[in-house]
Amino acid sequence: MKKLCDMQTDELKAFEQQAQREYDDFKSLNLKLDMSRGKPSPDQLDLSMPLINVLNGEELVTENGADCRNYGILDGIPEAKKMFADLLGVAPQNIIVYGNSSLAAMYDTISRAVTHGILGNKPWSKYDKVKFLCPVPGYDRHFAICEYFGIEMINIPMNDEGPDMDLIEKLIAEDDSIKGIWCVPQYSNPTGISYSDEVVRRFAALRPKAADFRIFWDNAYCIHHLVDEPKNILNIFDECNKNGTEDMVFEFASTSKITFSGAGVAVMAASENNVNSIKKQLGISTIGFDKINQLRHVKYFKNADGIREHMKKHKNIIAPKFEVVINELEKNIRPLGIAQWHNAQGGYFISFNAMNGCAKKIVSLCSQAGVVLTNAGATYPYGNDPDDSNIRIAPTYPCVEELTKAMELFCICVKLASVQKLLNSK
Amino acid sequence: MKKLCDMQTDELKAFEQQAQREYDDFKSLNLKLDMSRGKPSPDQLDLSMPLINVLNGEELVTENGADCRNYGILDGIPEAKKMFADLLGVAPQNIIVYGNSSLAAMYDTISRAVTHGILGNKPWSKYDKVKFLCPVPGYDRHFAICEYFGIEMINIPMNDEGPDMDLIEKLIAEDDSIKGIWCVPQYSNPTGISYSDEVVRRFAALRPKAADFRIFWDNAYCIHHLVDEPKNILNIFDECNKNGTEDMVFEFASTSKITFSGAGVAVMAASENNVNSIKKQLGISTIGFDKINQLRHVKYFKNADGIREHMKKHKNIIAPKFEVVINELEKNIRPLGIAQWHNAQGGYFISFNAMNGCAKKIVSLCSQAGVVLTNAGATYPYGNDPDDSNIRIAPTYPCVEELTKAMELFCICVKLASVQKLLNSK
Repeated sequence: MKKLCDMQTDELKAFEQQAQREYDDFKSLNLKLDMSRGKPSPDQLDLSMPLINVLNGEELVTENGADCRNYGILDGIPEAKKMFADLLGVAPQNIIVYGNSSLAAMYDTISRAVTHGILGNKPWSKYDKVKFLCPVPGYDRHFAICEYFGIEMINIPMNDEGPDMDLIEKLIAEDDSIKGIWCVPQYSNPTGISYSDEVVRRFAALRPKAADFRIFWDNAYCIHHLVDEPKNILNIFDECNKNGTEDMVFEFASTSKITFSGAGVAVMAASENNVNSIKKQLGISTIGFDKINQLRHVKYFKNADGIREHMKKHKNIIAPKFEVVINELEKNIRPLGIAQWHNAQGGYFISFNAMNGCAKKIVSLCSQAGVVLTNAGATYPYGNDPDDSNIRIAPTYPCVEELTKAMELFCICVKLASVQKLLNSK
Repeated sequence: MKKLCDMQTDELKAFEQQAQREYDDFKSLNLKLDMSRGKPSPDQLDLSMPLINVLNGEELVTENGADCRNYGILDGIPEAKKMFADLLGVAPQNIIVYGNSSLAAMYDTISRAVTHGILGNKPWSKYDKVKFLCPVPGYDRHFAICEYFGIEMINIPMNDEGPDMDLIEKLIAEDDSIKGIWCVPQYSNPTGISYSDEVVRRFAALRPKAADFRIFWDNAYCIHHLVDEPKNILNIFDECNKNGTEDMVFEFASTSKITFSGAGVAVMAASENNVNSIKKQLGISTIGFDKINQLRHVKYFKNADGIREHMKKHKNIIAPKFEVVINELEKNIRPLGIAQWHNAQGGYFISFNAMNGCAKKIVSLCSQAGVVLTNAGATYPYGNDPDDSNIRIAPTYPCVEELTKAMELFCICVKLASVQKLLNSK
């Protein structure tokens, strides 16, 4: 196959006609497939069905005798704190076991910072302007929280090792209105890139001008490996300890993509200073989260290793789906030289970069043929991808057969949009 | 027995000596009992144990086929919306099934009003001052939310029919910085008073100066009856419909004291205008609450009548405890003419009014003898009961034997504090 950029106009026209024919054929199949979100597939959810019944016949008390059925225990039952502490490599006193979603924990954390400030600092609502750094492409729901609270977002380019640390260090050293940064350090959403040791060390060593600058370390995919011998990122709190910067990091995780999405357990890790302050604020808004569901998770997994073992079953289901995506792209797109993508070692997404100005067109073509992708632009603050290039592919939900069909269509749409772009620029 | 106010000094001194002896005897028993919160007792929690296992073997899908194990459905699964809509006498489209706690739903509602305003009105944070009306005595956690957000609280006296409506109507008509009022309309916390039809009608007909004034209708005890033929309060939304004031009410309830506290389901009822606006905001903070737990509750109760039936079992357990409290007070305190209390027909509390200036002393005496009561003052904004008179008695948690002992002690402490007060004022 010839690269598209090496083709003459008549070759491009022939290529376009062929792609258009293939596209029209697909349209007549009347596909109907939603790949817009990173949702677990039904067979992944089936893995956790024993969780539903695991408390049958169990006494619903914590290891120190508290009744999980009654009020109380703001920060989680001790055995759940221990299990998640082990998983994240911190001490139990650094853990708050939250409700059903880490998104809610992140939202609450920002909301409280806006209304009440962080660790005795001025509420963010009292500043003329509050800014966040947003490595891009990134997670749309992070950006939505910032936009909702009127927090100005600044794009930070990602490279293969993580976000551009030179730029981050420079910006936060000079601008104290920058109050935070969103990070998905392992298998970043959507790029799949894991932060290098060097990047994690530089994060832990940041010297922000703002005392209330916080790193929102959304470790959503910390154990969501797609390979047998995964490389884990460095433990940021270990690195912070070396720098005396433990207060600078809020870490988040959940079992949404481990057990059940929405019926799982979320967790926040932070310094004891932060935990104590957060617990005081949290005590106004709740008497405690769902302790029975925490107990359910502990009885099912036993410990952090139990969770890690469970994740291998997820890997067995979803790794072949990631392969389908990569194989289709390698076969159909690579030879044409019209796009780049990252072969993720874990997480939930493959990030696809089309030729500039083609992403919206590709997503629209797919949609017209029955395959709904995440909106082009969604991976950028304000939904605005300045290059109109990035598309987030979420392979987990469809079955392999559907996914293969969808990727065939996707590749045709990429070809069609790309060739039309080239023809239009002639 | 002679009334204390009719006693001469030497009679009072003898009475004091006798009470002091009884108190010292009690102290030597080394009681250890926490009656500080309105918690269900273990045998109440046992009633709901089948809930734990009710989904065993069930398909975890909603009636319209959505998978409860996966992401999605912001406002609750349809069958849960229907069940709670029936319970509260509204339509399903007026319901948001929340997470595990109505306190969190109330907190979120206030927090969003502070940061983003209500139905397009200015955020409360942009006002110099925001005020709430607080019928007193009331619920300490309501007041804590206001205090946390710097909302100024204005005490509204309660009478036997509900709060002083003349005062409420007057205040909200002239002051647009008054943005809300806390109400526990049925079996009010702690008085046990239910609002009369007249009071509910006047609430629904309120004409506040502030467009974003809201009635926080915390119907926590709507089905928590202690008598066989309870009188239900009027449905406020029905009354609002007659006045075109549906947007003025946020209603809250939960199963915290029906199934499990903290592992239950909370619910909010509001006009469609409000529901649509809240859902938009809620969509930023969460992808959805725990649908599996919602399904668990629906499978267990089947419908609103199933919940009402279940509450009769609670009544059978806790009504005798309320009787213990009332009997001890009638026997030991009534003849002395030194206090008043309300014989609640439902709810979780008995509100006790000691002689002015005696509540703190009574609570302190009880505590020193091993019985922890809710702090005196807690039932008032800022923890400040201007009369130092009100004590909230929570009879549900202890067993009958413990409760009887605790009430004997309580009565002795009331006698001792009262007689000392009278002697000191001679």
